[in-house]
Amino acid sequence: MVRAGVLAASGYIGGELLRLLLQHPEVELAAATSRKYAGEYVFRVHPNLRGITDLKFTALDKSKLTDLDVVFAALPHGESVKVVPELADAGLRVIDLSADFRLGDKAQYPTWYGYDHPRPDLLEKFIFSIPEINREKVRGARLVSSPGCMAITTILALAPLLKEKSLGIDMAHIVVDAKIGSSGAGGKPSLSTHFSERYNVVRPYKPAGHRHSAEIEQVLASMAGEQIKVSMSAHAVNMVRGILSTSHVFTNSRPRPMDIWKAYRAMYADSFFIRLVRDKQGPFRLPDPKLVIGSNFCDVGFEIEERTGRIVALSATDNLIKGAAGNAVQSMNLMFGFDEKEGIAMAPLHPV
Amino acid sequence: MVRAGVLAASGYIGGELLRLLLQHPEVELAAATSRKYAGEYVFRVHPNLRGITDLKFTALDKSKLTDLDVVFAALPHGESVKVVPELADAGLRVIDLSADFRLGDKAQYPTWYGYDHPRPDLLEKFIFSIPEINREKVRGARLVSSPGCMAITTILALAPLLKEKSLGIDMAHIVVDAKIGSSGAGGKPSLSTHFSERYNVVRPYKPAGHRHSAEIEQVLASMAGEQIKVSMSAHAVNMVRGILSTSHVFTNSRPRPMDIWKAYRAMYADSFFIRLVRDKQGPFRLPDPKLVIGSNFCDVGFEIEERTGRIVALSATDNLIKGAAGNAVQSMNLMFGFDEKEGIAMAPLHPV
Amino acid sequence: MVRAGVLAASGYIGGELLRLLLQHPEVELAAATSRKYAGEYVFRVHPNLRGITDLKFTALDKSKLTDLDVVFAALPHGESVKVVPELADAGLRVIDLSADFRLGDKAQYPTWYGYDHPRPDLLEKFIFSIPEINREKVRGARLVSSPGCMAITTILALAPLLKEKSLGIDMAHIVVDAKIGSSGAGGKPSLSTHFSERYNVVRPYKPAGHRHSAEIEQVLASMAGEQIKVSMSAHAVNMVRGILSTSHVFTNSRPRPMDIWKAYRAMYADSFFIRLVRDKQGPFRLPDPKLVIGSNFCDVGFEIEERTGRIVALSATDNLIKGAAGNAVQSMNLMFGFDEKEGIAMAPLHPV
Amino acid sequence: MVRAGVLAASGYIGGELLRLLLQHPEVELAAATSRKYAGEYVFRVHPNLRGITDLKFTALDKSKLTDLDVVFAALPHGESVKVVPELADAGLRVIDLSADFRLGDKAQYPTWYGYDHPRPDLLEKFIFSIPEINREKVRGARLVSSPGCMAITTILALAPLLKEKSLGIDMAHIVVDAKIGSSGAGGKPSLSTHFSERYNVVRPYKPAGHRHSAEIEQVLASMAGEQIKVSMSAHAVNMVRGILSTSHVFTNSRPRPMDIWKAYRAMYADSFFIRLVRDKQGPFRLPDPKLVIGSNFCDVGFEIEERTGRIVALSATDNLIKGAAGNAVQSMNLMFGFDEKEGIAMAPLHPV
Repeated sequence: MVRAGVLAASGYIGGELLRLLLQHPEVELAAATSRKYAGEYVFRVHPNLRGITDLKFTALDKSKLTDLDVVFAALPHGESVKVVPELADAGLRVIDLSADFRLGDKAQYPTWYGYDHPRPDLLEKFIFSIPEINREKVRGARLVSSPGCMAITTILALAPLLKEKSLGIDMAHIVVDAKIGSSGAGGKPSLSTHFSERYNVVRPYKPAGHRHSAEIEQVLASMAGEQIKVSMSAHAVNMVRGILSTSHVFTNSRPRPMDIWKAYRAMYADSFFIRLVRDKQGPFRLPDPKLVIGSNFCDVGFEIEERTGRIVALSATDNLIKGAAGNAVQSMNLMFGFDEKEGIAMAPLHPV
Repeated sequence: MVRAGVLAASGYIGGELLRLLLQHPEVELAAATSRKYAGEYVFRVHPNLRGITDLKFTALDKSKLTDLDVVFAALPHGESVKVVPELADAGLRVIDLSADFRLGDKAQYPTWYGYDHPRPDLLEKFIFSIPEINREKVRGARLVSSPGCMAITTILALAPLLKEKSLGIDMAHIVVDAKIGSSGAGGKPSLSTHFSERYNVVRPYKPAGHRHSAEIEQVLASMAGEQIKVSMSAHAVNMVRGILSTSHVFTNSRPRPMDIWKAYRAMYADSFFIRLVRDKQGPFRLPDPKLVIGSNFCDVGFEIEERTGRIVALSATDNLIKGAAGNAVQSMNLMFGFDEKEGIAMAPLHPV
Repeated sequence: MVRAGVLAASGYIGGELLRLLLQHPEVELAAATSRKYAGEYVFRVHPNLRGITDLKFTALDKSKLTDLDVVFAALPHGESVKVVPELADAGLRVIDLSADFRLGDKAQYPTWYGYDHPRPDLLEKFIFSIPEINREKVRGARLVSSPGCMAITTILALAPLLKEKSLGIDMAHIVVDAKIGSSGAGGKPSLSTHFSERYNVVRPYKPAGHRHSAEIEQVLASMAGEQIKVSMSAHAVNMVRGILSTSHVFTNSRPRPMDIWKAYRAMYADSFFIRLVRDKQGPFRLPDPKLVIGSNFCDVGFEIEERTGRIVALSATDNLIKGAAGNAVQSMNLMFGFDEKEGIAMAPLHPV
Repeated sequence: MVRAGVLAASGYIGGELLRLLLQHPEVELAAATSRKYAGEYVFRVHPNLRGITDLKFTALDKSKLTDLDVVFAALPHGESVKVVPELADAGLRVIDLSADFRLGDKAQYPTWYGYDHPRPDLLEKFIFSIPEINREKVRGARLVSSPGCMAITTILALAPLLKEKSLGIDMAHIVVDAKIGSSGAGGKPSLSTHFSERYNVVRPYKPAGHRHSAEIEQVLASMAGEQIKVSMSAHAVNMVRGILSTSHVFTNSRPRPMDIWKAYRAMYADSFFIRLVRDKQGPFRLPDPKLVIGSNFCDVGFEIEERTGRIVALSATDNLIKGAAGNAVQSMNLMFGFDEKEGIAMAPLHPV
């Protein structure tokens, strides 16, 4: 049994990590830290876990974490970098879910996150993990960084297209239009998240300058073998869970559907959690976040518009699972040599 | 491994049975029948199961069911009674989810369902199963009837109060006001379920004469040891999954909270799936269907209004799980001697 | 033109008063006060009013209100009573939307609101106004109290039944089960109203002891000519606007539908804003808040359950309009001798 | 008083026309036709209009329309072209809401709508009406075509940018990503619109080849003075009313916000129904359909991403009002010389 701890376990991603780890057959959940709720029962903050666990939150005390086999750090950006290096230096396996170890180039941190990275040496050591993209690097890694939810979702739709050079994707005009539920914004109340103000919105909350652009560009550039720019806009929509990422890319290569299928299959043939969706009938012909809720799946599909030379690549995830906690547990499975699906192969709920 | 089949597996309850059975460690899902979709992949109708199973629907052929260990029948009322008796006579274990074997008194069928029951002998043989109420009868049973979703939910809130004679509940004025999501109405489109007409409603779709009244009265009368009448109204609300049942009962006994706690604990001390919820703070102080979504839990709680001599008993379930498919699988676990929680102990999703 | 002001205009009821008054042909909106937003444009707080008005909030300065013809006070309970008496003493017409002048018996204030009423003399002077119930008293009144949203909605369903003695309603077992959208809880963010926590709920937020019980009992007792007790429970459901009030009452008189129709028609024959709804087909056979959104209508309907001797009386309003601001403007129309419908006869939006 | 009739008045756009015309001070609603519901009360189909009108649907009899001053035709594409020419030939004023008279070039009809246009002469006579774009042409026109809801919304965001040549918009990479509520799909039930299947979706129902592309290109090309192509994708989201159109365009001109403001103000200075929204604080800093529900406003705003040379132009409408019925009534106001705002200046509902 792997003894696991979750840092900053009181947020939505933290709660989802607890839920998944409590149900994982190879894991013993040994610690859940929270500055605010130390001493409180976990189920008071995550009421879905009532009857499931009697664990209490503890304060984050690094000296007490040393007997753990792995630590999941769900701390906010800028906080993780203050805590995680010491754990990494002590030889602990760490799966970090913040942005603090995602970008390989230290020069990106002042630009996107407003701080100079204090430990650039760690940026090389942390593996940016999307198993479907770089499974082999994650296998056996000791330090892993789990990407942002919109980054994971978007990368999984675009990486195969950019890697397949014969598709001739125009690298200068890659538009990503993302739609996400409220849970992506976390658990802290504000006027923006007040139900009466948030219900029924299609809110363009970050039409330009979204930080996940940097992660997406980092991975896609390595796929494409050249610098690229991603033009990303993010919208909050009227639901709690789920992301649909709509990527609009251009090409003069007149691809047939089969060409695009091939690109996806070449990369995802062995990836249980990728489902290629492109049906001719029914209400769900293309990826839709409704159909991945509660699961670690990322559904991927596409449409071609010949008239404009456009490929619309679509991908859907449950932002708290494949977009965060599930991707982290999947990474842990690889790190410890378990079956990649262990503990996270549950089917989506439908209808919900 | 138990070889299981699901009859009428294309509906929402059927789909939920498939999802649970496919993930049950002691079950091999051997058949899923559908008149309409015979020959079609299951995941075409239940797209959440894409990537989970390659099973196809088959036509209902009773001769091909004989090698199964158990059959779950999710047929409509009036249809099940035409199919199930032959299976029961052949010695198959059957868990029926229709109303056709729920009522012990054959005289009730013309009144509530408009037909004379053709096999009243079977009404005695089928065990009306809510394990938290009659676990011992279900253990080892071969024929089981799983109640209606609103019946299960309401009974679990009221049974302990009516059984505890010292509470002195007024049997003549029991009001049950239920609120349910759209999935309870099934998967068939109509103007009433058209999204633009159904969104944002609080629709009193069955304010009087709800058929589940009969099941509730049957169980509660046996608890109370006397005839009772339940005044039930059902409302459709703006969500897909979940039931909140609000039961208003009267008493002159001036009960203290502790008296009511005792009644609940006496009945549910060993019932994992009942969570007693009555908190002093937080957004979820009393049962709320939001907090059981995706799980087999039934949350139960109450409030006392001294001024009017009223107890408000509250209960919440996921109507497709504890209200239907989960209760059926829980019953199967007892029938086959498995741990009652096997395969259905998953935590609810939150937030969703 | 009537010069009108709105006190505490930054809340949801205040905003709705502004919206209605700005569109009222006989009104000049002269002032909107807000302690918090004094000096700020109204449309910054009520962004729907962008392009409609350039009015700014002002601080509440009683001396500057004296040239107004009427003041709508949307202050919180306990605050209004500190401000309104001075305005009333100065001879201003006041329409108060708090609870501070609703209850005629000063002894009720410590019980329900926790304070001794400082001006019991005013309790007699304020007319508790639901025009459909006491139109003549409101006509020409100078001081009016507009009831709570659930009180208005429930009273409109029950008053005719309790007034009609031949129906023989059992006064001891009147159960009111109300379902309301989020806007009824106001505009202040909290964990309870955080979208991710509030979406999909059926939350029994006040199953016992709801303050509107007092108002309802006050009016219904006067209709019935005897003391009554109302057993009320309130639930928050997954929408922003709207109330459905389900009232369960008992009788041994075996009423026919026609008897109940007569009771309703006797009281509401001349009331434009009451629509009696009881259809045999279509998705909207009985009152549903979805069908009154954006309007001042109160839809009323009923069902009879012979078996249990129960009448289920149903009523639906837009809680911010007929439940609050619209009822207040309707009252103003009567006070000033305008057509009762002036400025508030707009049709509901559908679908929405 | 203008005597108006509505053809195909039983759909959602038809119902919205009825609602607006019934409340218009200069209009007498004289006829509402419906093949399916002839003889039925209008309020049976549009239950929000109960108590508002006692009008009945009639069959479409062209001979009985000749005494009308104006006909609004809300017939489906392909049907309108069979009915409207005769009315036009008879000299009736017609406002057509189908696509049958929107495209000026008859060659477009086989491509986009699959039929050869039988009356290309009328294509020149029908004015494609968005008053904010071509007010003068609509004033006094006798035949008007009201565009598609997504076309109106998108055009209003992009037209000023493409007209202002100094902005140097790249005409080859114009991406339009639209999000729309369920009412845009009409009132006919299907599995796709079944509440349990439709709730919580972000469904990419038309990622390529959307027919409104043709209308958008037609207008924008005339603004730009050159051929352009629009790469449009449409998504269905979890709400009933509203559109957000997110348009991504590229430029090397490094525009400042002020440059874009100027372009918008130059075109919309006198347009009451356009609200420019770009705030620094609050939940609604950019256009959001939530804030136009129930109104004829189109909110327009933008964001600049220097890094990628992108302008994100955002626009929001109530698809049934400014996107359809409201735009048609606004056109009627101009045709008859009324104030452009007459009968349609109502404020949006908020919160809703």
